[in-house]
Amino acid sequence: MSLVSKLKFKGRDIVAIEDFSREEINYILNISHSMEPFAAKGSDMLKGKILASLFFEPSTRTRLSFEAAMLKLGGSTIGFAEAEIASVRKGENLADTIRTVENYADIIALRHPLEGAAKLAAEFSKIPILNAGSGAEEHPTQALMDLYTLQKEKGKIDGLKIALVGDLRYGRTVHSLAYGLSLYNIELSLISPESLRMRPEVIRAIRNKISIVEDANLEKIISKIDVLYVTRIQKERFPDPAEYAKVKGIYRIDLKTLKSAKKDLIILHPLPRVDEIAAEVDSTPQARYFQQVWNGIVVRMGLLALVLGAVE
Amino acid sequence: MSLVSKLKFKGRDIVAIEDFSREEINYILNISHSMEPFAAKGSDMLKGKILASLFFEPSTRTRLSFEAAMLKLGGSTIGFAEAEIASVRKGENLADTIRTVENYADIIALRHPLEGAAKLAAEFSKIPILNAGSGAEEHPTQALMDLYTLQKEKGKIDGLKIALVGDLRYGRTVHSLAYGLSLYNIELSLISPESLRMRPEVIRAIRNKISIVEDANLEKIISKIDVLYVTRIQKERFPDPAEYAKVKGIYRIDLKTLKSAKKDLIILHPLPRVDEIAAEVDSTPQARYFQQVWNGIVVRMGLLALVLGAVE
Amino acid sequence: MSLVSKLKFKGRDIVAIEDFSREEINYILNISHSMEPFAAKGSDMLKGKILASLFFEPSTRTRLSFEAAMLKLGGSTIGFAEAEIASVRKGENLADTIRTVENYADIIALRHPLEGAAKLAAEFSKIPILNAGSGAEEHPTQALMDLYTLQKEKGKIDGLKIALVGDLRYGRTVHSLAYGLSLYNIELSLISPESLRMRPEVIRAIRNKISIVEDANLEKIISKIDVLYVTRIQKERFPDPAEYAKVKGIYRIDLKTLKSAKKDLIILHPLPRVDEIAAEVDSTPQARYFQQVWNGIVVRMGLLALVLGAVE
Repeated sequence: MSLVSKLKFKGRDIVAIEDFSREEINYILNISHSMEPFAAKGSDMLKGKILASLFFEPSTRTRLSFEAAMLKLGGSTIGFAEAEIASVRKGENLADTIRTVENYADIIALRHPLEGAAKLAAEFSKIPILNAGSGAEEHPTQALMDLYTLQKEKGKIDGLKIALVGDLRYGRTVHSLAYGLSLYNIELSLISPESLRMRPEVIRAIRNKISIVEDANLEKIISKIDVLYVTRIQKERFPDPAEYAKVKGIYRIDLKTLKSAKKDLIILHPLPRVDEIAAEVDSTPQARYFQQVWNGIVVRMGLLALVLGAVE
Repeated sequence: MSLVSKLKFKGRDIVAIEDFSREEINYILNISHSMEPFAAKGSDMLKGKILASLFFEPSTRTRLSFEAAMLKLGGSTIGFAEAEIASVRKGENLADTIRTVENYADIIALRHPLEGAAKLAAEFSKIPILNAGSGAEEHPTQALMDLYTLQKEKGKIDGLKIALVGDLRYGRTVHSLAYGLSLYNIELSLISPESLRMRPEVIRAIRNKISIVEDANLEKIISKIDVLYVTRIQKERFPDPAEYAKVKGIYRIDLKTLKSAKKDLIILHPLPRVDEIAAEVDSTPQARYFQQVWNGIVVRMGLLALVLGAVE
Repeated sequence: MSLVSKLKFKGRDIVAIEDFSREEINYILNISHSMEPFAAKGSDMLKGKILASLFFEPSTRTRLSFEAAMLKLGGSTIGFAEAEIASVRKGENLADTIRTVENYADIIALRHPLEGAAKLAAEFSKIPILNAGSGAEEHPTQALMDLYTLQKEKGKIDGLKIALVGDLRYGRTVHSLAYGLSLYNIELSLISPESLRMRPEVIRAIRNKISIVEDANLEKIISKIDVLYVTRIQKERFPDPAEYAKVKGIYRIDLKTLKSAKKDLIILHPLPRVDEIAAEVDSTPQARYFQQVWNGIVVRMGLLALVLGAVE
């Protein structure tokens, strides 16, 4: 029996990127690639299946991406976004909400402000949970779409020199991505101001697997890297506005920044951006952050198809 | 011609449980039972039909249940929930909203904070209205799913000893359920604090049909009953917080409560619960409140199929 | 080659009514007419296609109309309404939102509080934009449904005597409608208080094409007109409440108003209404404002089918 045939995704929760081996991630990326034509033209693969998107925290982008992925596979969606969680206002706990909604749907995409929420939901749920972001901790489907983008844009992930830039402390995206990248042979630069350095538990988990350099200076490394992954410095995660003011705008990417960069550098960003990438960069061949959005649809289609057993 | 063949549901409004005979309710329960396989696997029975879920008051649970029921029958949904009713902010009355939405959809599920809203909507609407809760008064689809649960879990409704416990004054669920139960040969215990006793108009309507005992003491009857129907004491319905503080938590069900109960007692709850049933009860064989949620889907599928003429 | 065969709608944005010739508008109305049976029974014409309804401003009525139109053609919908635009709260600009959502959907219906928003969106978007209302400026699909209603109810538009009544300054509906009407041989009366007169730029654009009379007095012309188009005086558009109080309720239409009207007068209203048309008028044969709602579905189906290339 081949290794691949032992991979099992049907009924599985997607809670944290650390739960997956390199082999499993490659398998997800391959299945996702096979979804590209269905993303363009639609499919009936999940006809009759229902996705519940439970967003206890606002995220238009991620919610619409999950819902579009389900619809493109022929399924349908129910759900709520922040403003409206009546049962929570009435005092219901997450476990009860999950044990209710599992009767309505075949799979749940869950976004929650608390770390550990997706894990708790998965323990109680009879149907699979897709973590659509929990606290500042994990955002595994974002990490998978980032890895997919690297594979698609650069042909392979191994050998890449990658810089994560900006807020590496509060941004859940970069935490999941760092775990994912540590499964490949890459060189990682972590560029942030002192107050926004990558969380120590992430560093500890990955430092024996890949080469890591931490620095506050982007200019020093810009000419050497293949991938520039920019993040927004999220005002809403700063307890102190004065702290925010200090670091706001320190890594603004513009045409000048790119002068010393490699011709085939690619720039990614989980979006939304505010002004950390200048609009003039959008039309350069390096800018790939809107292609990344498309890849998010494709990867979420792959995950839905795998977890609901439509592909194997 | 048999009695059953005279039953007509196509195009009918579902406004109040009192509008239905025992024969009609049994018929709804039978049709609902025939929906169980479609609830599990989906169906195309209502392909091309649209449900408008108009929720002028928050109720995630009920809204998602109606929408999932419609989707499982192959139909689709439009609608709104509380926060967003722009036309109402602009001063539109309910009759105009209904006469607008009837052009968009084939059936309307309406939740409204005012008593009588569903009845008014049904008078103006050319398409059927399903009352999804109006004021503190009526919640007929909840009552039908409760009756369905009794039939499914206990084999029959006649002969059961049933206790309704908690807030019998403000909870619309127990009002509709009491009317429904009065059509069967059951014995009803109404257990509540003095300030939350069942509304007199409900008592008057049912007291000649079934045996009723009102009491404040659950312990006295716990060993004799077949069905324990627990309700949340709804903080938001108390004008005075001091009144709420007095009655909060007086009927908390835990393992100790169940010690003197029958082995085949079943515990129901319309959900959401706060702490009136301890988490330790969830894993007992008596706990059936999450199965009740599933039954809600099945019964709403039955109603949609009947009222839209997909079954007869 | 005939003139008609040169008309091209596939992939086109519907931003402003001024972008269309009389020939093109007639073509849209004819295609919309062919949608009537599908509006009643459903269709699979747009199976696999996704409409994103992006409502940055509340409008339950217009949003549900677009969504129902898409569902009746077999497509599906994603989207958001006001309360929930997380990415905007995080500081994202409209161009980025559009370049994200174009990856999720096949067409976008956009409602935005700022004038020019739909035009800007169309410049950035790879997929067609349907303007669902931008600022106080344009609402082209409303104008098209109004023209469709005139054609359907009166057999033809040419030759009609039409009065627009109420708030002609802030109501975007009447601006788009006036542009549309100026392509036909009609006589237009603009009835409003001095402070709410039709915007000068609209008057300038249409005064050489059709006969226009501006007046504050409805009684003077009521006996001569074929179409009475009533608008709500929108409290929310008045900077000064005292100004609103002065003009509120000055053109209330009731049975008495209609006494001197033509027997075959028709009364239209973009809805929602507050009290500018008395409820007693609803049951007269002149009242056509709820039929207008149905026509909105039909016209939006026509536009979706044309722009997405399902009909030619």
